[in-house]
Amino acid sequence: MVDRSVGPRIAVVGTGLIGGSILLRLRETYPDVTGWDPDPATRALGRDQGVRFPDELADAVRDRDVVFLAGPLSSLPETLLTVARRTGDHCVITDVGSTKGAVARFAVEHGLAGRFVPGHPMAGTERSGLTAAAPELFDGAAWVLCPAPEGIGPFRLLTGLLVTVFSARVVPMAPTVHDSVVALSSHVPHLLAGSLAAAAADVDVRDAVLGLAAGSFRDGTRVVGTPAERIADMLFQNRDQVLRQLDQVRAVLDGLVDAIRRDDQDALVERYRQAQELRHALFARTLDECRSEFPAGGDHATELAYLLELGSAGGYLTGCETGADVVTYLGRRPPA
Amino acid sequence: MVDRSVGPRIAVVGTGLIGGSILLRLRETYPDVTGWDPDPATRALGRDQGVRFPDELADAVRDRDVVFLAGPLSSLPETLLTVARRTGDHCVITDVGSTKGAVARFAVEHGLAGRFVPGHPMAGTERSGLTAAAPELFDGAAWVLCPAPEGIGPFRLLTGLLVTVFSARVVPMAPTVHDSVVALSSHVPHLLAGSLAAAAADVDVRDAVLGLAAGSFRDGTRVVGTPAERIADMLFQNRDQVLRQLDQVRAVLDGLVDAIRRDDQDALVERYRQAQELRHALFARTLDECRSEFPAGGDHATELAYLLELGSAGGYLTGCETGADVVTYLGRRPPA
Repeated sequence: MVDRSVGPRIAVVGTGLIGGSILLRLRETYPDVTGWDPDPATRALGRDQGVRFPDELADAVRDRDVVFLAGPLSSLPETLLTVARRTGDHCVITDVGSTKGAVARFAVEHGLAGRFVPGHPMAGTERSGLTAAAPELFDGAAWVLCPAPEGIGPFRLLTGLLVTVFSARVVPMAPTVHDSVVALSSHVPHLLAGSLAAAAADVDVRDAVLGLAAGSFRDGTRVVGTPAERIADMLFQNRDQVLRQLDQVRAVLDGLVDAIRRDDQDALVERYRQAQELRHALFARTLDECRSEFPAGGDHATELAYLLELGSAGGYLTGCETGADVVTYLGRRPPA
Repeated sequence: MVDRSVGPRIAVVGTGLIGGSILLRLRETYPDVTGWDPDPATRALGRDQGVRFPDELADAVRDRDVVFLAGPLSSLPETLLTVARRTGDHCVITDVGSTKGAVARFAVEHGLAGRFVPGHPMAGTERSGLTAAAPELFDGAAWVLCPAPEGIGPFRLLTGLLVTVFSARVVPMAPTVHDSVVALSSHVPHLLAGSLAAAAADVDVRDAVLGLAAGSFRDGTRVVGTPAERIADMLFQNRDQVLRQLDQVRAVLDGLVDAIRRDDQDALVERYRQAQELRHALFARTLDECRSEFPAGGDHATELAYLLELGSAGGYLTGCETGADVVTYLGRRPPA
């Protein structure tokens, strides 16, 4: 269905920081890429950069092979339905929202699980808008894709695309696992940063804090620069997992406070040693190369189980080659 | 008392990351600088770099005009007494510890407030040891000094030295105010970072968190790389202020959680707007130049009041010129 001479025809819907960066990278590779954004000024800016930005969403997506949905999380379900209606059944749709459970359920309920693959690139800056977009934003970044049995073909196609075009590490993951993980790896850090910065805004020594703010305070508050509506969107959409993971962090914090009150230096040092090991592992993970083949047809149960286990184990895909009979995944994973 | 042809004779006691960086910068300016460290290997390393590192602390400090104390916080009182005994009454002593109330009281109790000036340079990295030291570590950094009426001469001398040699911003501050401020600007951020990283080490999705850790998690856990004993030292020594400021941060966090539970998006967005304003002010503070003169002699009450107000208001000193009759401070401060 994809004309190999020009590559897939792709649209990006919602061209802020993330969508804009996707668009800019895609157009470096493929000649036929379109954009759409609800904001007329953004569409004009996109046209100034030489990209086709029709005024109507339908015109931007009509003949596409792949559509990336990158608007605000709260508008995603409606946009997904609109784009699905305006595109052919062969068209693969994915999104970039920061939570995946709700949109995955929505797609199943609306019969779209065969061509909608929930996605989440783990990259960003505290800036926003098409003017802040950068084609290299996803180089080496983790990019979650959620494979489903009925959508394994679209998953394979997108994996190949993200690895080839974006140099991304594709992390296959079930939507609910993703939401639990990002609650701790992204959403709770946003909550802590917001609490620290807002508390400093309140206190009587605010001005002196500004004068003495050290690296720890600057690092610990960096992500509050993210637009407030985007932070609210992700916290509210992932409420249950955020509150559950926050409880774990608060339990550790209570333990540290208890150690401070009891003057138990050993207990505190031991906890920080564990924290340091985790921090060290962030940057010094040992990963082995891995390669697995599966039948291209069939029920894909083994393939799916392999993919989900790979992501949960902290591994990722670096390639996906689909032949007539066999699909081959290349990847990297922590040693068993 | 200082021979102007060679500048002050200075010793640095405890030459890890902070002390080593002080030493390396001082020797670029002054020919007669000595070092001492309890670790023989560190002393040998110092000698390899061409600095005099006697084996005995007494030999390193005996004839000095200024001594910087940069060992662990818990060893500070004993080292201060030793150095005070081994140096002349004209010798100015300062420290670099991350809390100031306890050591300031200790100096008063031991009759050393006339020549000991509590200090705290707000710079560092998560690395440690003389091998990690860098002479440019304090360029442009805030460096707290705590002036006392009986030690105003040493305060003026050190201010001039820190501004001239280290290009530091000298923040004059009362010891208790300093401890309250750094509890929020440095110690609580260390607690939050430790809680986040240690919680991630505990959870069942640990490996997946490592695979998906985004910028927010990396930034939010950076300072756990600081040696655990150093973190414990500063949290325990500043316990009351740390717990008081942590309560403020937890109150804000409780409010955010409450907004999430109540589905009150407006309340959450409003809080993040306040957090963003504070964050913005960190990098875009408007500061006016200021200049004040005081009599070189007298009881220094007006001079002291000026200095402490300047630091509390978020200002700092950029120069101190002491004449026979008049002392002139140059600085910058937020507009009234």
